[in-house]
Amino acid sequence: MFDIVHRVAVENTPPEAVFPALTTIDGLAGWWTTDTRGDAAEGGVIEFRFPPGGFDMKVLETSSAERVRWQVVAGPDEWVGTTVEWSLRLDGDWTVVLFKHAGWSEQVEFMHHCSTKWATYLMSLKALLETGTGSPSPRDVHIAHPD
Amino acid sequence: MFDIVHRVAVENTPPEAVFPALTTIDGLAGWWTTDTRGDAAEGGVIEFRFPPGGFDMKVLETSSAERVRWQVVAGPDEWVGTTVEWSLRLDGDWTVVLFKHAGWSEQVEFMHHCSTKWATYLMSLKALLETGTGSPSPRDVHIAHPD
Repeated sequence: MFDIVHRVAVENTPPEAVFPALTTIDGLAGWWTTDTRGDAAEGGVIEFRFPPGGFDMKVLETSSAERVRWQVVAGPDEWVGTTVEWSLRLDGDWTVVLFKHAGWSEQVEFMHHCSTKWATYLMSLKALLETGTGSPSPRDVHIAHPD
Repeated sequence: MFDIVHRVAVENTPPEAVFPALTTIDGLAGWWTTDTRGDAAEGGVIEFRFPPGGFDMKVLETSSAERVRWQVVAGPDEWVGTTVEWSLRLDGDWTVVLFKHAGWSEQVEFMHHCSTKWATYLMSLKALLETGTGSPSPRDVHIAHPD
């Protein structure tokens, strides 16, 4: 199995202020995709939609302001069954956000694409929290031909 | 072993025009770090320097306009012995750039950091080739507290 890992740190923002951006529909819509629906509570399913398609994520864990975990229950074949894990840690005036999209069965080209794209969305999350404005789909940063 | 993988595509730029950005000192200085020195030919060693330190990379392969491979011979412990692999492919008016930083022994937090940072440098490479201006260190995109 193969994983995508990333890290950003968010300035002047404690973990409690990052947490709603990962655990509420409005928060998620502010940095990943404006077309976010569903139930973001533990046990619920969140529907993330993008122009080319989307993902349904079951919320496995939102038990504390330090850890959030989803499992992909619908979407591209390569994504179904993978997990997306977030952990938050206070470090001075910053919150360190550790990210892992775990359980890819092969290092396909689509995995390379998703890794870079996740980085741009994490920068969108950071910008949302630091400046009030993220770059969610369809205003996302393009890294390739139609992406 | 664990790998960092990424992909970007560069518009209106054939692989032959991307290749010098990976295989010449001036090209590398335009998107990764302005402080790039050494010998970028196959068998040579390139010295990449950043405010906090740097890496020496031995050039293992620059045999065609499709593939470039380096091995880290000096730098942070986690990097030494790892390889950085590039492959380029024409796709219509675009060059698809596949990237792999292979051979990390553990998924340490520093690997998470480097994954996100590589994404921003690949976007810098794309910008250099599409617009003439990249964001090499020390004008790089900051993703965390001192990085």
